[in-house]
Amino acid sequence: MDYAKKSLRLHEQWKGKIEIVSTVPLETKDDLSLAYTPGVAEPCLEIQKDVNRSYDLTLRHNLCLVVTDGSAVLGLGDIGAEAGMPVMEGKCILFKAFGGVDAFPLCVKTKDVDEFVQTVYNISGSFGGINLEDISAPRCFEIERKLKQKCDIPIFHDDQHGTAVITLAGLINALKVVGKKLNEIKIAVNGAGAAAIAITKLLISAGVKNITLCDRTGIIYKGREKGMNWIKNEMAEITNPENLRGSLAEAIKGADVFIGVSAPNSVNKDMVHSMAKNPIIFACANPTPEIFPDDAKAAGAKIVSTGRSDFPNQINNALAFPGIFRGTFDVRASDINEDMKVAAAHALAELVEPEKLSPDYIIPTAFDKRIVPAVSKAVAQAAIKSGVARI
Amino acid sequence: MDYAKKSLRLHEQWKGKIEIVSTVPLETKDDLSLAYTPGVAEPCLEIQKDVNRSYDLTLRHNLCLVVTDGSAVLGLGDIGAEAGMPVMEGKCILFKAFGGVDAFPLCVKTKDVDEFVQTVYNISGSFGGINLEDISAPRCFEIERKLKQKCDIPIFHDDQHGTAVITLAGLINALKVVGKKLNEIKIAVNGAGAAAIAITKLLISAGVKNITLCDRTGIIYKGREKGMNWIKNEMAEITNPENLRGSLAEAIKGADVFIGVSAPNSVNKDMVHSMAKNPIIFACANPTPEIFPDDAKAAGAKIVSTGRSDFPNQINNALAFPGIFRGTFDVRASDINEDMKVAAAHALAELVEPEKLSPDYIIPTAFDKRIVPAVSKAVAQAAIKSGVARI
Repeated sequence: MDYAKKSLRLHEQWKGKIEIVSTVPLETKDDLSLAYTPGVAEPCLEIQKDVNRSYDLTLRHNLCLVVTDGSAVLGLGDIGAEAGMPVMEGKCILFKAFGGVDAFPLCVKTKDVDEFVQTVYNISGSFGGINLEDISAPRCFEIERKLKQKCDIPIFHDDQHGTAVITLAGLINALKVVGKKLNEIKIAVNGAGAAAIAITKLLISAGVKNITLCDRTGIIYKGREKGMNWIKNEMAEITNPENLRGSLAEAIKGADVFIGVSAPNSVNKDMVHSMAKNPIIFACANPTPEIFPDDAKAAGAKIVSTGRSDFPNQINNALAFPGIFRGTFDVRASDINEDMKVAAAHALAELVEPEKLSPDYIIPTAFDKRIVPAVSKAVAQAAIKSGVARI
Repeated sequence: MDYAKKSLRLHEQWKGKIEIVSTVPLETKDDLSLAYTPGVAEPCLEIQKDVNRSYDLTLRHNLCLVVTDGSAVLGLGDIGAEAGMPVMEGKCILFKAFGGVDAFPLCVKTKDVDEFVQTVYNISGSFGGINLEDISAPRCFEIERKLKQKCDIPIFHDDQHGTAVITLAGLINALKVVGKKLNEIKIAVNGAGAAAIAITKLLISAGVKNITLCDRTGIIYKGREKGMNWIKNEMAEITNPENLRGSLAEAIKGADVFIGVSAPNSVNKDMVHSMAKNPIIFACANPTPEIFPDDAKAAGAKIVSTGRSDFPNQINNALAFPGIFRGTFDVRASDINEDMKVAAAHALAELVEPEKLSPDYIIPTAFDKRIVPAVSKAVAQAAIKSGVARI
């Protein structure tokens, strides 16, 4: 199907993919007096006395803001705030359909980090949580950090953490297939954007010891000067224990796992050949992966995962964020922390039954109805255990 | 009925009065690929090329932001941003129920005028229009003016202009009953807040020549020093042609019309006695009016209007804003200007059939199904005629 043309035609018919509807009766004068003035003064006064009552008396308890500045929309780059809205609306309907979360799409017309942060902070009192979306790196890291400091509601950048959770889930199962352990393997990651950084950090949280990041310039190492920024410098401190230097080909040599969230066709068969026994490949560049599954397998890959729905083992963010926010909202968590993300990954991984686990089935598929209940439960439990649950 | 207690109990059950729902199918992989990635890239690119396409391809064409800073919620004063949300949600469901307008409620956590303006401007790219709500005077005038300068979408402060439109509509019909003309009458207005200022300005736009404003200090006149601010100084220039001084009692003496958007019980029978023949009283303080209808009538008032639904002639904002935004959105107007407001008032007034017009029926009631079609049509036509319509 030509998705582009058909999607444009449908969007012209739809004129918006969401609707804001009333959930209360408005048929009589009394209805008006209870949902609006004069009755509504009473819930207002309750919230004035205790702001936490806003979670009981408005939609806040279930309302997520989905917000972008339009600086890194899909693979399209900086297309402007308004142009990101079809994606934001799309994200919101996935939130509702999969997670039962009410989500509202918004674009912010500034590229200034502090102004973006201040704007989102200023409106945060209406929401139970905030999902950052399609914001360019390294700005996204700074925005996320500053918002987490300022706001008392959870801040989640799905392009980072959603992708990281599903990658970890897939990796947990892939390692079962090949009989290797997280803390013993060597991983090469290509890309130094939002997803690559977050994946690397989450894998370290989950126990990975030997992981090396590459960008367009090559391997990231302590003291490298060309093409670095503050986040790459930070990553150089906690990755690359062998102090490798050189190109991606050097990093991938002898690695058990390759994870690409980078550029199409950036991995060739020789690189796969150079990996350790039973190589695991996550080639997530979209729509053209770092290497196509057939080529990777021909070069010896045991397991291949991509970002595409037409190949096995799709890394699809829709597997994670609905359940993560569902669980977060269910216990009114103040944060979505590393423990909660790792718990989400394990819950996702465990949905693949041992008897069904295979090189072509390491991750559940998007329409698996078990996902949100399992992920939300694990996330809520981890929130309670780590002390960020508020009910 | 004890609205306060019952409303609080209902709000605890409802946990929010709105819901954000999907209007497109999400059952299959193809559905996902069309509403979300990869298909959604195409409408994004369309908007990147021409930002006006955001009106065709997202909900923007029908989406109104309902936003407060919580500084003047109902009659409760400054109760804080979050505490205003039950009112904002209530407003949004009225927008939808009466006007078919999707409206989203938001509170902004700042009392700084410029920061509020910048925050709302920064998010304005997602909306077709903005309804300011429950913001204290005189800050509301500055916020409205600055937002109108910055934004390319209509900005409307309902507490000002909605109230003004309905008051004008009621006055047009009241004058028919007593056989007087707008440009010949003398009006005394009590109050110098958002509603009073806007009513006065709109009445002047509609042709009123002799109108005098009073605040707690008394009559507002050129050169008064006590209790003035920039907006009162502005109003002193365009009102009070007789250069009256003194208390409200002085202003009301000989007036044909009294309009109160001020304090309970601030008008007594003697004041009504002192008015011109067939006095018209709009006593809109809520819930306790400036003078109760029975007392006003006993003192000779011909027509009395209040803000309450349990007396005749209710000045109810729900009569105006749904139709005004419906008409504005229908022609994608860039502004809601004076012509459009006056047109809305005349349309409302004309809904009262000449044969039914009486001292107790000068304004249609909230559930009259003819209101939104009539008001929206008049507003759209006035937008076209005044050159602010964009489709």
